[in-house]
Amino acid sequence: MRRSVDVNCDLGESYGMFQVGSDEAVLRLVSSANIACGLHAGDFTVMHNTVKRAMAHNVAIGAHPGLPDVQGFGRRWIPYSPGEIYDLVLYQIGALAAFVRAEGGRLVHVKPHGALYNKAAVDRSVAEAIAGAVRDFDPELRLFALSGSLLIVAGQAAGLRTVSEVFADRNYQTDGTLVPRSHPQAMVHSGTMMAERLLNMLEKGSVLSLDGQEVPLLAETVCLHGDEPEALVHAQTLREALEKREVAIRQV
Amino acid sequence: MRRSVDVNCDLGESYGMFQVGSDEAVLRLVSSANIACGLHAGDFTVMHNTVKRAMAHNVAIGAHPGLPDVQGFGRRWIPYSPGEIYDLVLYQIGALAAFVRAEGGRLVHVKPHGALYNKAAVDRSVAEAIAGAVRDFDPELRLFALSGSLLIVAGQAAGLRTVSEVFADRNYQTDGTLVPRSHPQAMVHSGTMMAERLLNMLEKGSVLSLDGQEVPLLAETVCLHGDEPEALVHAQTLREALEKREVAIRQV
Amino acid sequence: MRRSVDVNCDLGESYGMFQVGSDEAVLRLVSSANIACGLHAGDFTVMHNTVKRAMAHNVAIGAHPGLPDVQGFGRRWIPYSPGEIYDLVLYQIGALAAFVRAEGGRLVHVKPHGALYNKAAVDRSVAEAIAGAVRDFDPELRLFALSGSLLIVAGQAAGLRTVSEVFADRNYQTDGTLVPRSHPQAMVHSGTMMAERLLNMLEKGSVLSLDGQEVPLLAETVCLHGDEPEALVHAQTLREALEKREVAIRQV
Amino acid sequence: MRRSVDVNCDLGESYGMFQVGSDEAVLRLVSSANIACGLHAGDFTVMHNTVKRAMAHNVAIGAHPGLPDVQGFGRRWIPYSPGEIYDLVLYQIGALAAFVRAEGGRLVHVKPHGALYNKAAVDRSVAEAIAGAVRDFDPELRLFALSGSLLIVAGQAAGLRTVSEVFADRNYQTDGTLVPRSHPQAMVHSGTMMAERLLNMLEKGSVLSLDGQEVPLLAETVCLHGDEPEALVHAQTLREALEKREVAIRQV
Repeated sequence: MRRSVDVNCDLGESYGMFQVGSDEAVLRLVSSANIACGLHAGDFTVMHNTVKRAMAHNVAIGAHPGLPDVQGFGRRWIPYSPGEIYDLVLYQIGALAAFVRAEGGRLVHVKPHGALYNKAAVDRSVAEAIAGAVRDFDPELRLFALSGSLLIVAGQAAGLRTVSEVFADRNYQTDGTLVPRSHPQAMVHSGTMMAERLLNMLEKGSVLSLDGQEVPLLAETVCLHGDEPEALVHAQTLREALEKREVAIRQV
Repeated sequence: MRRSVDVNCDLGESYGMFQVGSDEAVLRLVSSANIACGLHAGDFTVMHNTVKRAMAHNVAIGAHPGLPDVQGFGRRWIPYSPGEIYDLVLYQIGALAAFVRAEGGRLVHVKPHGALYNKAAVDRSVAEAIAGAVRDFDPELRLFALSGSLLIVAGQAAGLRTVSEVFADRNYQTDGTLVPRSHPQAMVHSGTMMAERLLNMLEKGSVLSLDGQEVPLLAETVCLHGDEPEALVHAQTLREALEKREVAIRQV
Repeated sequence: MRRSVDVNCDLGESYGMFQVGSDEAVLRLVSSANIACGLHAGDFTVMHNTVKRAMAHNVAIGAHPGLPDVQGFGRRWIPYSPGEIYDLVLYQIGALAAFVRAEGGRLVHVKPHGALYNKAAVDRSVAEAIAGAVRDFDPELRLFALSGSLLIVAGQAAGLRTVSEVFADRNYQTDGTLVPRSHPQAMVHSGTMMAERLLNMLEKGSVLSLDGQEVPLLAETVCLHGDEPEALVHAQTLREALEKREVAIRQV
Repeated sequence: MRRSVDVNCDLGESYGMFQVGSDEAVLRLVSSANIACGLHAGDFTVMHNTVKRAMAHNVAIGAHPGLPDVQGFGRRWIPYSPGEIYDLVLYQIGALAAFVRAEGGRLVHVKPHGALYNKAAVDRSVAEAIAGAVRDFDPELRLFALSGSLLIVAGQAAGLRTVSEVFADRNYQTDGTLVPRSHPQAMVHSGTMMAERLLNMLEKGSVLSLDGQEVPLLAETVCLHGDEPEALVHAQTLREALEKREVAIRQV
């Protein structure tokens, strides 16, 4: 059984007056923070504050670039060309890195958001564009991507250290991708089930898909969601289950 | 008489399908380029292309952050707090610097745009916010600001190397600020007059205000405007006038 | 004592994934709804849903145009010219009216939002621009404006039926304007105090300013705020106080 | 041979400082204007000015709603749901209609823009959403759509008067849709060829596709493009060709 796992969460998703999430509470429960970069959520002031908070909690900081679509929260695929994807990812990494640099911190990883994350899992040119932007900014950055996805492949081909991500609160399809949010069974709503799924992933290296198939995966980091009402309770349940089995929560 | 001067121009001000300026031609005439950073003009793809072009022409690259206002082109003052100004400037410098870094170039300077530039000339807290953001990103960056303005003061107080800017195509007020664009005599439209004004600035260290007063200034860099129809002709006239007087055009 | 008063609230202020307010609950407590029109909050789908909800609750529908500034929620003054103010108000009224029309409803009033509301209270050219846009769209529309403000004057000069608004949860300055939100005593936080203030306004036609002066005002409509955590409780307290004194809550 | 045809053009596509097109000149050459509604181009002030200009030239006014995407100019398909399409079309028609109403004019037609136009030609649910929004705003409005497309079908099913549109400057695919702009042979660049194609359409009711097939179509209105450098010359050539064959240019 894996003896440690990183726990990450999307943070800094407020926008101006629009408040999202319970960042302060979540920061006590995670080892890595994916911070929105202004194009789908998280304006420049939210970014700066979130960087400061993450540093205060000694949580690893990652850029969380998304498609430029505040209304759609970056969850709709917009057909940008690979060149544009490269540019918009590089833009957002640079913007976030500036706050980290000004605060004397260190940018550790990049995890694409929403539709960009999902598309990169299955579209090679999108995956390569993202991996290229990360490498060209800093080849030491870790690339977080869905376990078994094309983005893991593209990241490794680009010479990046990849971190395979699993979801305890999302159902999987047999091809290893997530059940889309529009599907009624997209989400797992019980904290106990999430914990059980995660421990299984760590132990067996697989998850049961919605169709009942064993899907192999590598659980280097697990994603929590901070925007669900019961997210904090579930996160606490997960942590306790991990502690009980002596799995350390540790950034990669 | 000063024997050299930098010539700068705002570039990369297109936005998506909206084309502005004649960047390719302008790059042959200037020593420094101020590249828009996405919030008032210049989307991420325009930024990347402009960085590549500037490097190809061996022109010094600067970030040109503006207020977030595409419709208003950053020319309207929006009352952001000093903290927000710091954040939006840092955000934009970081975003542009990412493209420069990916292309193996060097970011040389920062020049605020439009309403941000004008406000920083006369408002101490805005000036300090900008200077702080530049310094916290990289204390080696040069800060371009209106000669004699509070932004020059704030930049020097922050330990930055400042570059005093003059305008050959704009009329001055007696307090050393520019006549606002809304004024009928804001602009000087004759290339010959521009050249004469600039040479006077270089020789005497002053300019005649619209009210007929000698206003002292320091002409370390002169700003060309690339968005006027006759901009290229005037730029050519200026260059020839400088050459004739053996003033070198050289980045700072 | 006035025997009836309209109770209005800003509604439909969500934007895409960003949820604001408890519209469904608030609609049970008010007689008029001011619906955001897409430029500071309330995207087109939120607008449509809010119009349908307001009609289902038989609440009078008003357009609530704001400055184009989602990040700032329309609370920052941006120096648009009077001509632009006219245009942006007309644009938003038309957009909202389209949903009302498609649903077979009736647009009853217009109330400007945030910085636009506050500026129109004290700036004649802004007030006239707004009043002109309302009249040119439909002279039968009622114009909601701060009691005693220049927007009341401009509305009446434009031949509109004005509705003077008071705030039970905001403190007043001696000139009759609201204490700005940035001030620590901007808000009244006790429901009992709000009720007492409102009953005083209805009875005496005045309110005590923060400086202890009696400020005359006309309480034709009172504004509730739906975005405060305790807003619903306070609204309920206000309603009960009005009922006890036999003041009817009735749209204008 | 058809003895009359409407000539339409997209207008009002500037945005803030970003100038597009030669609207004043184009208005002398067309009988119908499709005016952008603020979400892909054409801010509220541009809209108002364009309505006034179109009325001064006695040109029929249409709303030209697009996807909310200024950077992409509405030319990228963004996967909005049919309900959202209905809402964003209704929003834009209402906004434009407000300017027409304030100026005492009449809104005659609606023509969707860019990716929305192309998608509606081939996607039934998008076509029905658009037709529904037009009908629910005003069933007297004419709906401009690609000849032979699903939007013509949906419009007629909704009880709308449809106007079949042809393109003299775009190449057709055998299925009757336009060759995408990304294709090297998307555009016809010769004015003489355009005129010949249009006269053929009017006479025979068909056009030769890029694959050499006769594609039947109905030429009730022909679209000019105002944003190409030689657009005005070509428009003039078209007009002369029509006059020579005694085909009247007349709004529908």
